[in-house]
Amino acid sequence: MNQWGLKVMTKEELFSLKADKPSEEIYKEAGKIWDSIAKPIDGLGDFERVVCQLCAVQNTLSIDIEKKILLVFCADNGIVEEGISQSPQSVTLEVTKSLSKEISSSNTLARSVGCEVWPVDMGINSDEMISNVIARKISKGSRNFLNEAAMTEEETLRAVEIGIELSKKCKEEGYKLIATGEMGIGNTTTATSIICALLSLDPASFTGRGAGLDDSGLERKKKVIRAGIEKYAPAYEKLPAKEKAFEILRCLGGYDIAAMTGVYIGCAIYKIPVLIDGLISAGAALVANSILEECKDYEIASHSGRENGLMVCLEALGKNALINGNMALGEGTGALMVMPLLDSSVFFYKNATRFSQTPIETYERFN
Amino acid sequence: MNQWGLKVMTKEELFSLKADKPSEEIYKEAGKIWDSIAKPIDGLGDFERVVCQLCAVQNTLSIDIEKKILLVFCADNGIVEEGISQSPQSVTLEVTKSLSKEISSSNTLARSVGCEVWPVDMGINSDEMISNVIARKISKGSRNFLNEAAMTEEETLRAVEIGIELSKKCKEEGYKLIATGEMGIGNTTTATSIICALLSLDPASFTGRGAGLDDSGLERKKKVIRAGIEKYAPAYEKLPAKEKAFEILRCLGGYDIAAMTGVYIGCAIYKIPVLIDGLISAGAALVANSILEECKDYEIASHSGRENGLMVCLEALGKNALINGNMALGEGTGALMVMPLLDSSVFFYKNATRFSQTPIETYERFN
Repeated sequence: MNQWGLKVMTKEELFSLKADKPSEEIYKEAGKIWDSIAKPIDGLGDFERVVCQLCAVQNTLSIDIEKKILLVFCADNGIVEEGISQSPQSVTLEVTKSLSKEISSSNTLARSVGCEVWPVDMGINSDEMISNVIARKISKGSRNFLNEAAMTEEETLRAVEIGIELSKKCKEEGYKLIATGEMGIGNTTTATSIICALLSLDPASFTGRGAGLDDSGLERKKKVIRAGIEKYAPAYEKLPAKEKAFEILRCLGGYDIAAMTGVYIGCAIYKIPVLIDGLISAGAALVANSILEECKDYEIASHSGRENGLMVCLEALGKNALINGNMALGEGTGALMVMPLLDSSVFFYKNATRFSQTPIETYERFN
Repeated sequence: MNQWGLKVMTKEELFSLKADKPSEEIYKEAGKIWDSIAKPIDGLGDFERVVCQLCAVQNTLSIDIEKKILLVFCADNGIVEEGISQSPQSVTLEVTKSLSKEISSSNTLARSVGCEVWPVDMGINSDEMISNVIARKISKGSRNFLNEAAMTEEETLRAVEIGIELSKKCKEEGYKLIATGEMGIGNTTTATSIICALLSLDPASFTGRGAGLDDSGLERKKKVIRAGIEKYAPAYEKLPAKEKAFEILRCLGGYDIAAMTGVYIGCAIYKIPVLIDGLISAGAALVANSILEECKDYEIASHSGRENGLMVCLEALGKNALINGNMALGEGTGALMVMPLLDSSVFFYKNATRFSQTPIETYERFN
């Protein structure tokens, strides 16, 4: 037994998790339905494919994404000691309180798009108990990765496990679509570190300003990320893929990213479509897909954001962002913005006129 | 008096039309409201700017885009004789009939996003009167531009005038947001010709497959566009900017594009925000902005589509596409897809929590 009074999954248990691929047959059948609609073949482009994916994941041609939930993982990051963010760490707590009162940015946007929001305290630097927040605090923030690994192995496993557990809870409560979001000052630094480490990228080219950082702060952030990668690379670079991804997450990540990694794994296990938001959740998806490759078939990219690191990460994930907009808000707001597009696409798929209902025999087709 | 029994505006009248710029003061005030919301500065990115634009156009900080209309301009194009499309010309008529019965793709999508649809017959190659379609037929299709100019001067002016007239009608009927769409076999050829002519681009690099064209068809289409440009360039290339744009529209365009040009001009005159859809409407916007530069401040780009010509055109228009999705459906469907994003952005702008309502003093800011 440990500090949380419970048995945490082992690394071996995590690495041996299995998930089915979504139904390829249903994917193809849904594609045939799209082709039967009186419009140019592939006219709705990526929106057609995302509906096919939703069908395949739910294993039905009559998909339903009505009941939606956004999970917002809130955690602090020890790396803020290095001055990589212009906001004080206390903003993590304050925004989480706004989430608890349903007045934060994501709450407002979620109301507009018909989605519920569950904030989760994964590790805010505060002893305060916040009502209406799922309490899963692992510790009062991850460690400064320039001094030591951001998380212990047990902490990392526990955070991933929480993500998996919450996916399961969402499934049990009937949610049909999950969106992932986060709140944690310093987490574009941890996410960029993970992405650059996993994809062997130079932080000089892929470090962004996060929620807004001045030029000297940006230079500092690049140096911190590079130093972090250099510190841990000798230990992780020779490891097998799953081990390597886990170690990168553990050494350079944070509780929020680890929990989101768990959500993606859980969504694959419990067959729930899940929306990636911005840089931080995309970094988590990269880790999840390295640990359990089926995750990628359950994930949907939402927006292209404003960070170079996000774009290269989506490319590595093999995902097209559905919206642009240069958003950099966090809290899952990019994923929320995409929801009405998915609703419209599903509505269209279900209700559009079929060729058989019109005198039009065919439209142009690619050959 | 002419064949339509009415006096058409002259070219001089068209070129001397005036429009006000949207209120710069309101734009700035709306920006201040965004900055007072408890979120990172510029967090919603382009969605913040588009709301500022909507405010400036409507000259109020309390914007309202509830009542929306999609105008779908339907017309045939003589250039189809050259085999630049795989669909028979009759599809234009059939899809217009679907629009009249409210069962076309854009009708279904419009129902999903809360928008009304008005189809307009600008020049379908048919004598059939279609109920529920605004009858503005100029002729039964434009001419094959390899033989002669696609439209006469009077036809072009009449089509532009119809667009202006419809903008006015939308304003009078209380529509707060207009989207532009089209239906006309062959109109990616006319639009690409206009875009390449106006921007001096090589059709070899910017001609796309439209609703779906095979490789040999694509080669034919490129040759047709190049031949068209070469035929008329000597006559238009020395003209002043407005004249040149008008001549390019007249020689290489079609009734649908000319009408959309009129809609953009009308939206500037009557102060209505207007959504550009895909390639064809973007080509029309390029013409409109050359004739009346204030148009650009009233236009909003929707999606980036699948055609190279669209992307380069949006760049020339100075517009960011809000969504991706690789759509190539037509009928204004890309503009419809964007509407819920605008609704969500407006809802957020109106309802999001202000810094003054929270203990958070500031978030990170760009310096």
